[in-house]
Amino acid sequence: MELHAAYEVIPRLTINSARIRADFDELACIGATPEGGINRLALSSEDIQARAWFAEKIESAGFILRDDDAGNLSGILPSENPDARTLLIGSHLDSVPNGGRYDGSIGLLAGLECLRTLREAGVTLPIHLELIDFTDDEGCWMSLFGSRALVGAIPPDAFTDVKQDNGPFRAALARAGIEPRDVPNARRNPETLLGYLELHVEHGTRLERAGAAIGIVTGIVGRTTYDITFHGEAGHSGTTDMYQRRDALRGAALFIVRTHDVVRERYGDGIFNCGNVCVKPGSFNIIPSKAQLTVECRHVSEQLLNDMETTMISIARECAASYQLTVDVQTKIHVPAATMAAGVMYEIEQSCETLGLEPLHLFSYSGHGAQILSHHIPSGMIFIPSIGGVGHQPNEFTPWEDVERGANVLLQTILGLARQQVRL
Amino acid sequence: MELHAAYEVIPRLTINSARIRADFDELACIGATPEGGINRLALSSEDIQARAWFAEKIESAGFILRDDDAGNLSGILPSENPDARTLLIGSHLDSVPNGGRYDGSIGLLAGLECLRTLREAGVTLPIHLELIDFTDDEGCWMSLFGSRALVGAIPPDAFTDVKQDNGPFRAALARAGIEPRDVPNARRNPETLLGYLELHVEHGTRLERAGAAIGIVTGIVGRTTYDITFHGEAGHSGTTDMYQRRDALRGAALFIVRTHDVVRERYGDGIFNCGNVCVKPGSFNIIPSKAQLTVECRHVSEQLLNDMETTMISIARECAASYQLTVDVQTKIHVPAATMAAGVMYEIEQSCETLGLEPLHLFSYSGHGAQILSHHIPSGMIFIPSIGGVGHQPNEFTPWEDVERGANVLLQTILGLARQQVRL
Repeated sequence: MELHAAYEVIPRLTINSARIRADFDELACIGATPEGGINRLALSSEDIQARAWFAEKIESAGFILRDDDAGNLSGILPSENPDARTLLIGSHLDSVPNGGRYDGSIGLLAGLECLRTLREAGVTLPIHLELIDFTDDEGCWMSLFGSRALVGAIPPDAFTDVKQDNGPFRAALARAGIEPRDVPNARRNPETLLGYLELHVEHGTRLERAGAAIGIVTGIVGRTTYDITFHGEAGHSGTTDMYQRRDALRGAALFIVRTHDVVRERYGDGIFNCGNVCVKPGSFNIIPSKAQLTVECRHVSEQLLNDMETTMISIARECAASYQLTVDVQTKIHVPAATMAAGVMYEIEQSCETLGLEPLHLFSYSGHGAQILSHHIPSGMIFIPSIGGVGHQPNEFTPWEDVERGANVLLQTILGLARQQVRL
Repeated sequence: MELHAAYEVIPRLTINSARIRADFDELACIGATPEGGINRLALSSEDIQARAWFAEKIESAGFILRDDDAGNLSGILPSENPDARTLLIGSHLDSVPNGGRYDGSIGLLAGLECLRTLREAGVTLPIHLELIDFTDDEGCWMSLFGSRALVGAIPPDAFTDVKQDNGPFRAALARAGIEPRDVPNARRNPETLLGYLELHVEHGTRLERAGAAIGIVTGIVGRTTYDITFHGEAGHSGTTDMYQRRDALRGAALFIVRTHDVVRERYGDGIFNCGNVCVKPGSFNIIPSKAQLTVECRHVSEQLLNDMETTMISIARECAASYQLTVDVQTKIHVPAATMAAGVMYEIEQSCETLGLEPLHLFSYSGHGAQILSHHIPSGMIFIPSIGGVGHQPNEFTPWEDVERGANVLLQTILGLARQQVRL
C-alpha cells in the first residue's frame, strides 16, 4: 500500500480558500437570522434544507453520498482498497437558536474542501475518507444524537421514555425520514474505523489571548446536568412564625453561593453553573415551598468531576438541613470526560510544524462528537479562534485566514494519518 | 346624651352565638371550595353573591343599607341624634384564592350580630354604628381598595396607569356597578367618624401559644414590596472564561442569603421575604444574564422599616458589585406601619376585664383596613386565635367559643366607646 501521488508534493498541497469561502457564504444563507446568525435547529426545515444543499455538494464533487439510520449524512472518498479502514472527518450542520455561522459548518466545509483537494491532486489514500454530518449535535432533541447513534449509545427507551414526552422528537425524526426503530442500525463496527477528526471554532478566548492560530485539543470536559429541588413549606410571609419558617429559596440561595465558592477554591478548572431557578408558589408575600434548580457541572478530569459532584450534593444536603428543608437531587445527563488520542494529536502537531504554525494545547469546555467517539476510536480535534470567545451567538466571527490555516492543518493531518497507516 | 337602656344590663348583654353560627354556615357556602376553603376573589361573581347575601341580612334585620362609590357596603344602626359621629365596624367578604372561611367574614358577622343584639336590647346609642364591608381588602385588584377609597387615598391614575394594564380591573368594577370616575366620592370626612373597630383572626400562633383568647392589636407592620433585578451577561457556561463571567443569579443568591442574615441579626421582628426569582435565559448551560427577585419587607416600626430597606438596597448593590453586575431596585407597594389608638385599645382591655378574659397585646404582621384608617381616625383591632396559625389557607379554623368570646368583646368595646362618647 502506498500513496499514489508523488510523496514530495503532499506537504505543498493546500486547500482552495476561495472555493470554501463561496460554500460558507451559500450555507450561511440557509436559516440566516436578522442578527447575522443562524437558526438551523436539528431536523427543522432549515436543517433539512442545509442537508440537501450539503448532499448536492457531495454528489457534484463526485463523492459517494451515504446516510445512515440516524440521519447522519456522509460523503465518501473511497480508497482503492475496499478493505481499508475509514477515517471519519465530521461536524454538524445544525445550530442552536440564533447561533453562529462558523460553529459546526466550518468543520464540514473544511472537510469537504480537503476531500476535493485530495481528489483533484490525484492522491489515492490507503484509507477511506468519510466526511460526516452528525444529526442533532447541538441537542435540540437529544444532545450528540448522531455521534451517539454511530457508537450504538442511544438508550433503547430513548423515544418511548414515559418520563418525558418524546412525541415531538419522534415526529421531527419522521419528517426527516428517520425511523426510531431503525436508529440502532446506525452503529458502526469500531474495527472498520481508523479514527475521527474534527475542526471546530474554539468557544473561548484562549487561542486569541495566546496569539495562536491552531489549538490541539487534549481532552473534552465531562459534563453532568442535574435538577436539584429544595422542598420547604409555603406560608404567609408576614404571619408565619420565624421559628416555623422552612424557606426553600433561602436554602437554595445558600447552596448556589457556597457551591460556586467551593468549586472555585477546590476544583481549579471545574465549572458549576446554576442556569435557572423555578420557585413555587412564587408570590411576594408567600414563603417559597419549592425551589427547583437547573444545574450543570463540568470538569476535564472524570475523577475530579465525580468528586466535585459528590461535594456539590453534600453542600445541597447541608444547606437543606440549615433551614429544615429536604432536597431531591436528580441526574439528567452525564457525558463522561474524554481524552484525545496521542497518535492523532501527534499528527496535528506535525501538520502545524509543516505549515510553520505554533499550536496551543488546550482542552475543550464544550461537548463535541469527538467526546462520544473518543471512547471507541482514536479521535482528535483542531480548534481555530473565535474572536472574543463568542460561541452560540449570532456575532460569532473567525477571520478567514484562520479558517484557511485550520483547513490546511486538517488536510495535512488527514495525510499524516494516512501515512501512519502506510507505516503500520 | 345618655344610654337609653338600663346601664347595669349592658355588661350582661351577650351576642346570640347560635344566630351568628347559622350566618357563618350560610356565608361559607358562597364560593366554597372542595378543600373546605373559600374562593371569593374581590368583584368576582362569588364576591357579588356574598355581598347580595350580606345586604339581605342587613335589610332583614332592619338596618339601613348603604353603599358608596367604591363599592363598600354598609349596614347602619343610627343614633337618635342625627349629628352623632359614626363608629365604623368593618372587615371584608372577599378572600384570597382558596382562602379560609374565618378571614374577614368573622369580623363582619360578629359586627352584624352586635348591631342586632343592641337593637333587640333596646339600647339606643349616642353614636351611629356602621358595619362596613370593604371592597377588595385582600388585594386581588388593589390591596385595601375600599378602605383606601374611604380615606381618599386611591391615586388619581389608579385606573389609567399606563405601566400596568388596568383594563381587567376596570371591567370587574363595571360588573360590580362601580364607576372608576366616581371612586373619589367614597371619601368620608374624618370629623364625622368616631373611630374604626375590627375583629379578625390572628394569622400566627402567638395567641395559641400564650393560651390567650383575645389579642389587642397595638400596631400593624409597615410593608414594602420591591422588584429587584440583577443584570449580568449571558454566555455559554462551559466556554466563557472565568474572569469574564457576570452571573446575575450568583449575585442574586448572595443577596438573598445576606439579607436574610442581616435582617435576623439587626432588625428583630423585621421580616424579609424573597418570594420569587425569574432567571433569564434560564438554560442549564447558559450563565444567567438576569435574575428578577420579588421581595417584601415588613416591620412594625416605620422608621426601622425604612432603615431595613436602606440596608437591603446597600446589600443588593454590594452583591452586584461583587460579580460585576448592575442592579435595579423598584418599589412596587408601600403601606406604612400603623399604630392603634390608645383610647380604643383601652376600651378593648376594659371589655376583656368585664368578660374575665386575659388579653395578649401584640402587633399584626398582616395588613388590614385598620392600617389605612388608623392614619385618619382612632382605630383598633381585636384578634382571635387561628389554630396552628393558619392563614389564607382552606384549613383555617377557629374554635367556636373563641369566635363567641371575640364577638362579645367587640360588643362590649362598642358600648365602651359609646360610653366614652357620653363622658366626652
